[in-house]
Amino acid sequence: QNDLLSATGTTIFTVMSALAVQHGAINLGQGFPDYDGPEDVIEAAAAALKDGRNQYPPLTGVPELRVAVSDHNRRFYGIEADPNAEVIVTSGATEAITACLMAVLNPGDECVLIEPLYDTYLPVVRMLGAIPRLVRLSPPKWELPRAELAAAFGPKTKAILLNSPMNPTGKVFTAAELAFLADLIARHDCYAICDEVYEHLTFDGWKHIPLMTLPGMRERCMRIGSAGKTFSLTGWKVGYITCDRTLAPNVAKAHQNLTFTTPPNLQRGVAIGLAKEDAYFAGLSASLQSRRDRLATGLAELGFGVLPTQGSYFITTDFRPIMSPLGFNGDDVAFCRLLTEEAKVTAIPVTAFYASAEAPGHYARFAFCKGEAVIDAALERMRNWL
Amino acid sequence: QNDLLSATGTTIFTVMSALAVQHGAINLGQGFPDYDGPEDVIEAAAAALKDGRNQYPPLTGVPELRVAVSDHNRRFYGIEADPNAEVIVTSGATEAITACLMAVLNPGDECVLIEPLYDTYLPVVRMLGAIPRLVRLSPPKWELPRAELAAAFGPKTKAILLNSPMNPTGKVFTAAELAFLADLIARHDCYAICDEVYEHLTFDGWKHIPLMTLPGMRERCMRIGSAGKTFSLTGWKVGYITCDRTLAPNVAKAHQNLTFTTPPNLQRGVAIGLAKEDAYFAGLSASLQSRRDRLATGLAELGFGVLPTQGSYFITTDFRPIMSPLGFNGDDVAFCRLLTEEAKVTAIPVTAFYASAEAPGHYARFAFCKGEAVIDAALERMRNWL
Ligand SMILES: CSCCC(=O)C(=O)O
Ligand SMILES: CSCCC(=O)C(=O)O
Repeated sequence: QNDLLSATGTTIFTVMSALAVQHGAINLGQGFPDYDGPEDVIEAAAAALKDGRNQYPPLTGVPELRVAVSDHNRRFYGIEADPNAEVIVTSGATEAITACLMAVLNPGDECVLIEPLYDTYLPVVRMLGAIPRLVRLSPPKWELPRAELAAAFGPKTKAILLNSPMNPTGKVFTAAELAFLADLIARHDCYAICDEVYEHLTFDGWKHIPLMTLPGMRERCMRIGSAGKTFSLTGWKVGYITCDRTLAPNVAKAHQNLTFTTPPNLQRGVAIGLAKEDAYFAGLSASLQSRRDRLATGLAELGFGVLPTQGSYFITTDFRPIMSPLGFNGDDVAFCRLLTEEAKVTAIPVTAFYASAEAPGHYARFAFCKGEAVIDAALERMRNWL
Repeated sequence: QNDLLSATGTTIFTVMSALAVQHGAINLGQGFPDYDGPEDVIEAAAAALKDGRNQYPPLTGVPELRVAVSDHNRRFYGIEADPNAEVIVTSGATEAITACLMAVLNPGDECVLIEPLYDTYLPVVRMLGAIPRLVRLSPPKWELPRAELAAAFGPKTKAILLNSPMNPTGKVFTAAELAFLADLIARHDCYAICDEVYEHLTFDGWKHIPLMTLPGMRERCMRIGSAGKTFSLTGWKVGYITCDRTLAPNVAKAHQNLTFTTPPNLQRGVAIGLAKEDAYFAGLSASLQSRRDRLATGLAELGFGVLPTQGSYFITTDFRPIMSPLGFNGDDVAFCRLLTEEAKVTAIPVTAFYASAEAPGHYARFAFCKGEAVIDAALERMRNWL
């Protein structure tokens, strides 16, 4: 069997969700809403099912969704992209990321990755025979270590994979940070895979800036969005890539070998969603911001060290302030197990987002994309436990 | 950019479907039905959408579909498989094939492939750094060249990818052929990826035999089925893998990096479908058999050399008997273009299923999974053209 996969674990999200079920815990681990997406989007997908849209759509997506993605890019970011040659619909952002990496990396190429990172990035880069160059943000402020980042780029660098707004840190990259990255990318003549699935989930006036909008970046970036996150429908697995027409053919050919295409009725629903008025997108972030506040306040009251979250579904917490006084000196994995088994609340250990064992071991990630009663109940359980 | 993808073409199915649209041709190229799947399956998927089943399902699939796949395996083939540890749902059979290849192949491993072959097999094997060992069936009878096949297996063989019922040939492998293969697989201690998406589309009393049911093969085979083909819903992109519990973890981890999971509402519909009574499956093959007969008879009347089809959606034809007398001596690609542009009927050139240029260049593949009026109209157009 394949050695790389044999040496990899089942994703932490599945492991912790299973553990949550086993212990009857409230699951603030895996990032999925416990509320439904917009009714009109769901209705449109259901209607399309009965309207005979059940055979293969075009490889790159149904035309109306490609147009909607293109319009959405223009409306929010001023990005002009040809719906017929620069947009590719995929079966979720996971597939999109894998397809973009496949499109550009050759064996032996180097790919810069920023830790903490989502758990499919590294296995896919390695599977392609490419060489990961890892650079770490330093907690608790998750600052970009500019000198290290510059040193990670070299003559063999083919691509960087950037996630902003970032999971699990909740960091939104600033214009200055993006400019620094853009300069490196241009100077080393390489590509950027931009995992921007949380683009609409930013708070406190933070605005997502696609790297693609920076000077010189239009041709180098593959920008990835996700209907799961933008419409609170994570199970739909509809993602979309916007990239230059010189990159799109290889991305489409990777997609062709991965899934070929994506259910047309769900694509139709997402097209309806992307055309929604601005109020929808503003309402989405406002609603999540209030959930974030509720959970962050509660966790801080319990004594957690709560790191700031500018975007995404997640709050990172330092559990030492509450656990050290109790004589607990275990790592984040031990903490998340204990919390699940005893407090009946599930969180994700942040070391799962690092490639090596020497990672900060005192952070747990909580998802706040949950009903207010669920957030309150989770806080109440932890209060009783402590 | 990635060299292998840059050197690959866009899939022939997309190319020919686009050409068909451009010329207003009847599309007997890409294999998708122009009729809808069972109403109760579609209704169940639509109801599930409105019933809040819109967030991530489990990595390996919703429990009810895994149970349905397991029950279906037992009912039709006597295969016992644990729904909790030996079934993985994927976003279509394309993803399933890619995931199974990833699960077992290491760079440098050899993988035996049988030509003519589906056009994702070879690029994926190569992307994984594995070495394809190609063996050709010889038309017009598509016999298994036993000596060559035995010679293709060696100490570095890790897997064989077998497609039965086979696209584009319509061949259903016999018990004797499968026994010969099983012996090679056992002796060389390797795995088989079994693309059995046309399992229920067999004709004239031909029965599909999963390689997995042969002695010694239970632990070595990854058996792939497809809701798209079994329920005439090719756009749904729901596939399922049955394999031993020793293989399933790596397959699931490959799936985790490819799409992570598959829309839960469509999974629910497919679970309803797999539980249908035997009459549904018998009706499906009977209906396709009559479409095959209609198209085969018509093509023979026009003068095509019609090769026998025991299963699948496809008829392979030798176009020389009609085209040579007309002074046409072009290859299959030229023929299929001409047919699309002039007769306004689209077929697929069979050389698209070969890795190298030296392939039989006088076959065109026609899909018969179409309404009877459409089949008749296509025949009529060709008659008028000739
Ligand atoms: C694909 S399961 C993980 C969902 C997610 O993005 C997360 O929890 O980080
Ligand atoms: C995935 S598009 C091709 C459909 C098919 O299986 C075929 O036409 O051979």
